[in-house]
Amino acid sequence: MAVQTVASTGNTTVDLGPAAALSCRECGHRVPLGPVFACEECFGPLEIAYDFSSYDTEELRKRIEAGPANIWRYAPLLPVPADVADKPNLNPGWTKLVKADNLARTLGVTGGLYVKDDSGNPTHSFKDRVVAQALEAARAFGFTTLSCSSTGNLAGAVGAAAARAGLRSCVFIPHDLEQGKVVMAAVYGGELVGIEGNYDDVNRFCSELIGDPAGEGWGFVNVNLRPYYAEGSKTLAYEICEQLGWRLPDQIVVPIASGSQLTKIDKGLQELIKLGLVEDRPYKIFGAQAEGCSPVSVAFKAGHDVVRPQKPNTIAKSLAIGNPADGPYVLDIARRTGGAVEDVTDEQVVDAIKILARTEGIFAETAGGVTVGVTKKLIENGVLDPTKTTVVLNTGDGLKTLDAVAGTGLTATIRPNLDSFREAGLAS
Amino acid sequence: MAVQTVASTGNTTVDLGPAAALSCRECGHRVPLGPVFACEECFGPLEIAYDFSSYDTEELRKRIEAGPANIWRYAPLLPVPADVADKPNLNPGWTKLVKADNLARTLGVTGGLYVKDDSGNPTHSFKDRVVAQALEAARAFGFTTLSCSSTGNLAGAVGAAAARAGLRSCVFIPHDLEQGKVVMAAVYGGELVGIEGNYDDVNRFCSELIGDPAGEGWGFVNVNLRPYYAEGSKTLAYEICEQLGWRLPDQIVVPIASGSQLTKIDKGLQELIKLGLVEDRPYKIFGAQAEGCSPVSVAFKAGHDVVRPQKPNTIAKSLAIGNPADGPYVLDIARRTGGAVEDVTDEQVVDAIKILARTEGIFAETAGGVTVGVTKKLIENGVLDPTKTTVVLNTGDGLKTLDAVAGTGLTATIRPNLDSFREAGLAS
Ligand SMILES: Cc1ncc(COP(=O)(O)O)c(C=O)c1O
Ligand SMILES: Cc1ncc(COP(=O)(O)O)c(C=O)c1O
Ligand SMILES: [Zn+2]
Ligand SMILES: [Zn+2]
Repeated sequence: MAVQTVASTGNTTVDLGPAAALSCRECGHRVPLGPVFACEECFGPLEIAYDFSSYDTEELRKRIEAGPANIWRYAPLLPVPADVADKPNLNPGWTKLVKADNLARTLGVTGGLYVKDDSGNPTHSFKDRVVAQALEAARAFGFTTLSCSSTGNLAGAVGAAAARAGLRSCVFIPHDLEQGKVVMAAVYGGELVGIEGNYDDVNRFCSELIGDPAGEGWGFVNVNLRPYYAEGSKTLAYEICEQLGWRLPDQIVVPIASGSQLTKIDKGLQELIKLGLVEDRPYKIFGAQAEGCSPVSVAFKAGHDVVRPQKPNTIAKSLAIGNPADGPYVLDIARRTGGAVEDVTDEQVVDAIKILARTEGIFAETAGGVTVGVTKKLIENGVLDPTKTTVVLNTGDGLKTLDAVAGTGLTATIRPNLDSFREAGLAS
Repeated sequence: MAVQTVASTGNTTVDLGPAAALSCRECGHRVPLGPVFACEECFGPLEIAYDFSSYDTEELRKRIEAGPANIWRYAPLLPVPADVADKPNLNPGWTKLVKADNLARTLGVTGGLYVKDDSGNPTHSFKDRVVAQALEAARAFGFTTLSCSSTGNLAGAVGAAAARAGLRSCVFIPHDLEQGKVVMAAVYGGELVGIEGNYDDVNRFCSELIGDPAGEGWGFVNVNLRPYYAEGSKTLAYEICEQLGWRLPDQIVVPIASGSQLTKIDKGLQELIKLGLVEDRPYKIFGAQAEGCSPVSVAFKAGHDVVRPQKPNTIAKSLAIGNPADGPYVLDIARRTGGAVEDVTDEQVVDAIKILARTEGIFAETAGGVTVGVTKKLIENGVLDPTKTTVVLNTGDGLKTLDAVAGTGLTATIRPNLDSFREAGLAS
């Protein structure tokens, strides 16, 4: 894989707000902002380094609270220009943090249980958050095509964002995704390419394409724009804390595909602590996978620091990344915070989707079934403390994974008259 | 059909906020608040009469602006108790008003075009707004089962709301709805009954059930709770005006099934004017139907005051009500405001869904295709003024009507290598 370094885009003129540079997560080497993602010194992943030094805590808090009801209320903490809210984008975020008292009773949680419901985003997954950051980077670096490798949700988010921003899009997905995700990704009019292979094949192909002239002018949101993209997940941490009244939750349960989201939620929480926006006290982060794609969970339980790739086979297709780029960082975070990584079977995923729907009226996709299922399992195993404030992420929408619950349907079919109704035995 | 009158629930103790009584839309006869929907004098529809006399305009505006980012910011104008936001419900509303500049260019609108995107609601249609009102009425009147006749969206909204509120639900739909709507309605665990017939058959059956002992204790959100339910659509009017900076739009394009939504949007605008929250100036309301179910449009064009029922046959199933209860009121409002009612073919509906997706990244269900398609047609016919501020409603979500755009899919399927990519001719 060709590792591009900075230069070509004349990045000294790039305005991405408080983003000051890219910094290597492994060796700390810094390079100017540009469409690069791997360290030229050690091949480690680059991430955004910020300059927050001018912020006064209470001023910042007021500025955020007075901001729009979307992620741009946190623009001062994101790699975006100050006028980002005025540009055409999907304005995702500020989704509901649902106090889930019925679910709490069902799971035996007494310390307060919340579902952060990201199905309320424009394309109904948390991916709108990350794409919105990548879009600004693409604009800044002059890319004309927005691209990605996707397990489904990202494809729709990129297609929609590109359409509204007036960019071309060309996205790559495994050829066998759910119909809802395929149609949704296609309807925005961009190119949608099915790859004969799984997500890891798709991802490898995209890395190849970046190094090739055929990919010139293309911003791959989760490859060469990954450092920018990934920051979008911090907004989940910001919103959860602000919606709790500027308070850290005790425990958060996060799904893992590449592990980017979990890693950046931790980064977001750390920033809030450092900025003084929340009190500095312990929190635990729990990672959730499906058994059929559980490389991080397996490594966690075995006490390994590295993640051994798997060939995914699960209905939780949006989480089906067998070789997760941020796996080792997830292990670090789960261990450092006193959390854990756990997995559930496909059957438990389906059960959990139904439990969430029947208790709270929230219809989650399989990824939401994974987090709720893992939460249930961790409570039963005594790993998650039911007396503590707990936030479970639902990052996607049940309408995109209908097959998972296709067994659910009509209770009865009747003729339009009372006799037929009585025969069906439905009277109260 | 049995017309119930007040009494049984001891309604004098009912607290539904500013709702003072029910009043007949035809003869003005007033009765106390109760689960009734037709006037005992003239069989006309009952609607909520409010006591807003104590409100000071600027105080009210401040109270609204300081309220939650959902419909309960308007609790002082709705038939709900003051503490409604603290009860378990889905907290819908405060959805995005999207400035649709790309769509405006495509349609030739120069005066400002906005899409009010209600796909952002919890169950992804505007029905969450109306159900939230009916739920409060059901609680107030002591109903233990929440029910409805539905063209699909309402079924999901009722199922979800009942689950979260801890009520039983039993909803009735035509047996041949879209899979997405059926599965979504079923997943919340309530009873879901398919009726062999179309929506009008379903609705007739529900009216029968209310008069029967089998339906005792059942609150049918759009039958015996209809006066409360219907008020939820006022919040669309409130939000649009507040989001425009407390300003009336010049033109609004609204879909019509029963006609309730359009009627109550007009009511909401009139209230804002009377309360002094917006300047009193003319606005036009346009109704949108699919040609395959266009009873109101046909009546409008023929200059009739009454609506002749049709047998629906259109892909816009959520709007497929052949005998719309509020049809005559829609005709009144379109004529009084200088608007119109128009219809488009199924093909135009599909085209319009794609236009909206490709210009603004909004994936609408067929009902949204109807409003965008009608807007396009009305501009082409010179009926809608492109130099005026125009708001088009998208009331539902494309993921629920995938079949309408099922033709859209993969651009290409390739093997995961550059040669295969180049062969497909996709390079930029
Ligand atoms: C719905 C959903 N949740 C969670 C994730 C996990 O994302 P990450 O790759 O950041 O771990 C994905 C990734 O595709 C997703 O689609
Ligand atoms: C998506 C959608 N839009 C609009 C409507 C119209 O509602 P009304 O019956 O109030 O005219 C419906 C009714 O089912 C609907 O489902
Ligand atoms: Zn390095
Ligand atoms: Zn009357």
